[in-house]
Amino acid sequence: MSFPDVATPQQEFDQITQHWSPRVLAQVNDQYVKIAKLKGEFVWHKHDNEDELFYIMKGSLTMQYENRTVSLKEGDMHVVPKGVLHNPVAAEECWIMLIEPVSTAHTGDVVSDRTRSIEDQLA
Amino acid sequence: MSFPDVATPQQEFDQITQHWSPRVLAQVNDQYVKIAKLKGEFVWHKHDNEDELFYIMKGSLTMQYENRTVSLKEGDMHVVPKGVLHNPVAAEECWIMLIEPVSTAHTGDVVSDRTRSIEDQLA
Repeated sequence: MSFPDVATPQQEFDQITQHWSPRVLAQVNDQYVKIAKLKGEFVWHKHDNEDELFYIMKGSLTMQYENRTVSLKEGDMHVVPKGVLHNPVAAEECWIMLIEPVSTAHTGDVVSDRTRSIEDQLA
Repeated sequence: MSFPDVATPQQEFDQITQHWSPRVLAQVNDQYVKIAKLKGEFVWHKHDNEDELFYIMKGSLTMQYENRTVSLKEGDMHVVPKGVLHNPVAAEECWIMLIEPVSTAHTGDVVSDRTRSIEDQLA
């Protein structure tokens, strides 16, 4: 997979019409940089071997964990550690940048109607 | 090294008084997310085994390569591939986010008065 020399996340958001459908913008080493629009509740899941970084580009997001929640607003950055069950919830539409390994399945160990293949994310 | 649960790049920029002195904000897998303020010309260098992602948060940056230049403005994202000689140049002050392996020496195979140890970057 090759990527454009210069990616422009803000312009790429215009191409995204579906919620919870990540789009890969760049690869740096073994990680993908993705963007996504979120709204509503995702699914509880975890990634056994992979951290996942969320950077809030617009709006706000609540990261639910089993024993706490983390509230994120525009400009905030938060890492979901590997192996930890989590569920992102966006009351209103939220735009995010994600950094995660190329190997990460975005719904982790769970397959749901929200699951998008990496081929879809690269499209 | 442990990092705050939530990092706020825009606020962290206020803490940076030196140009070309990266500050590590987060670790995701084997990569660090850093921010830096740049002004002027850096040093020609390369990273033999490590890609380096530049995301322009404010201002603009020219990435010089041996046979071309890439012009980057606010909101642009660009990956310097491993092994490729490059030199970032900022005519005016430019704020960037960087993603690179924890192992990356920011001046690559060159040591100059611009070189900052990873301990300095984590401070």
